[in-house]
Amino acid sequence: MLILVTNDDGILAPGLQILARKMKGLGEVVVVAPAEERSATGHGITVRDPIRIKKASLEGINNAWAVTGTPADCVKLAVQELIGKCGLVISGINSGPNLGTDVIYSGTVSAAIEGIILGIPSIAVSLASDEHDDYAAAAEAAFVLASHWQRNKDRLPPDTLLNVNVPPVSKTEIKGFKVTRLGMREYKNVFDRRVDPRGNVYFWLKGDLIPHDEEDPEIDVVAVEQNFVSVSPIHFDLTNYRLIDRIKAVGFERLAMENPV
Amino acid sequence: MLILVTNDDGILAPGLQILARKMKGLGEVVVVAPAEERSATGHGITVRDPIRIKKASLEGINNAWAVTGTPADCVKLAVQELIGKCGLVISGINSGPNLGTDVIYSGTVSAAIEGIILGIPSIAVSLASDEHDDYAAAAEAAFVLASHWQRNKDRLPPDTLLNVNVPPVSKTEIKGFKVTRLGMREYKNVFDRRVDPRGNVYFWLKGDLIPHDEEDPEIDVVAVEQNFVSVSPIHFDLTNYRLIDRIKAVGFERLAMENPV
Repeated sequence: MLILVTNDDGILAPGLQILARKMKGLGEVVVVAPAEERSATGHGITVRDPIRIKKASLEGINNAWAVTGTPADCVKLAVQELIGKCGLVISGINSGPNLGTDVIYSGTVSAAIEGIILGIPSIAVSLASDEHDDYAAAAEAAFVLASHWQRNKDRLPPDTLLNVNVPPVSKTEIKGFKVTRLGMREYKNVFDRRVDPRGNVYFWLKGDLIPHDEEDPEIDVVAVEQNFVSVSPIHFDLTNYRLIDRIKAVGFERLAMENPV
Repeated sequence: MLILVTNDDGILAPGLQILARKMKGLGEVVVVAPAEERSATGHGITVRDPIRIKKASLEGINNAWAVTGTPADCVKLAVQELIGKCGLVISGINSGPNLGTDVIYSGTVSAAIEGIILGIPSIAVSLASDEHDDYAAAAEAAFVLASHWQRNKDRLPPDTLLNVNVPPVSKTEIKGFKVTRLGMREYKNVFDRRVDPRGNVYFWLKGDLIPHDEEDPEIDVVAVEQNFVSVSPIHFDLTNYRLIDRIKAVGFERLAMENPV
């Protein structure tokens, strides 16, 4: 199996390189990753600037490219121009969680979404801590999942994306794997307002997480807190089907194109 | 009603300014928009650079700010720091369609998604042509929709987002409004490979749309082709609920954290 490894922390990130070396146990690995950190780029793609690529020499990895684009660009370019259609896209290991509402901002997950848009089974893997930097258990969890999936690949559709968050604990402390839905992540103090030496105001985007009161371990944020590896299936259909009939009932389809004022 | 107008084509885009002036018929308008074009930024936010703001003087608009960030940044900053919670976020009028699969890449729609994340009813409006540049009918359609929604606001939840695509025809040729789900948009020739004067390869992301064979006008891409204004409800819950039971059935929850090789 040909496996594409990418991320949003950039090609020099230790999480990517550990993941890429681990995945060699499952197939032929090619790394195509952003030349620089592209965190929180969401599902951005590069349409106003040209995209450049450079061969990268990474320890223990035969084939790696650095790309001057976003994670989604990397997957598009890898599949369309560099390696062709592969058997698996795996993105990570991200430094920090990609849970709940925050998934929509995630470059790590967007690479995997690009994978399923192209019809390739995909995994996004994150180490759910901003401080912890031991990726061993997360790489192991990703490998266990990907191996099991490979053995059962005909039982899931090709547009399956698993968003995996690994708690920041040792392998022996992990309680197991939990299939989850995305929860909510809400913040306060979203901006840090500062004044530069020339007297101009500027802002840093930050935000302090507001504690939630969920207890159901089938919600991703809870599963990770309880030391489970959270495994959420993700899709890219943003249609809110639940609202279609309600919107029709409000009469939008009966409107005419004339100014009602 | 306080109305926040933003976009991804940047504060100087004619579509934004026409929309902002039109919305004055419905309430007090504040423009907070990217200082530069930020198309196809998806739901990116700015976490590695400071965000700066500058007062902008736009014809017929009293209160406008240019922001050195993404569309999602603009909405976050407007609500958290500049104007507080408003009654409506409206993003556009985008130059070009935001239909089907492509919605995931859209900066225009991401601004509206940020609106509903913050609990504010939101609209994204796009003129569904890359050539046509007469925004009058699209502004009219947005106004008709927003006015009707305002009169019926208690009948829809505050996290309602309408993604509106207006066909590039005159007002009299528009057949009406159609509530739709997102369709597929598939491309070939995704990259244009070139060589620069120094002999280095680079790529432009492009792509030629592959014709689809859908005929159901309740799919957004079809509705617009049939000269309807397409109105799709959008959410930000990326959980693929349809797959949860299938993934459990494959036995991921029974895996143990030991290397199966």
